[in-house]
Amino acid sequence: MAQYTFTVEMACSGCSNAVKRALTKLEGVDNIDIDLEKQTVVVDTNLPRESVLETIKKTGKTVKE
Amino acid sequence: MAQYTFTVEMACSGCSNAVKRALTKLEGVDNIDIDLEKQTVVVDTNLPRESVLETIKKTGKTVKE
Repeated sequence: MAQYTFTVEMACSGCSNAVKRALTKLEGVDNIDIDLEKQTVVVDTNLPRESVLETIKKTGKTVKE
Repeated sequence: MAQYTFTVEMACSGCSNAVKRALTKLEGVDNIDIDLEKQTVVVDTNLPRESVLETIKKTGKTVKE
């Protein structure tokens, strides 16, 4: 199990809930912790970082790498 | 060319911009018109409706069908 942290532009709880929902649908994700104020998305998963990143990008949100 | 209208829960301009960005990346989409107040996403495309719907769903937004 690995833990990855992404910085994602999220403006409101609708934004953060959308990211959470998209990641919840992704098989192999164990836990998602989103901090709207810090603009962070922390994911516990067995998946490679790139797969998680791709899913976040598909939400249309800007990921600051 | 077809035009499809979807009703999507979007709370702020960050939400609507994310949906717009996700659809812009989809090849075969000609025009996207989003009305945040009406909660509508209007797409001009040669793609089947289902493909567009799938892309919107991947944003994590709730689509009211």
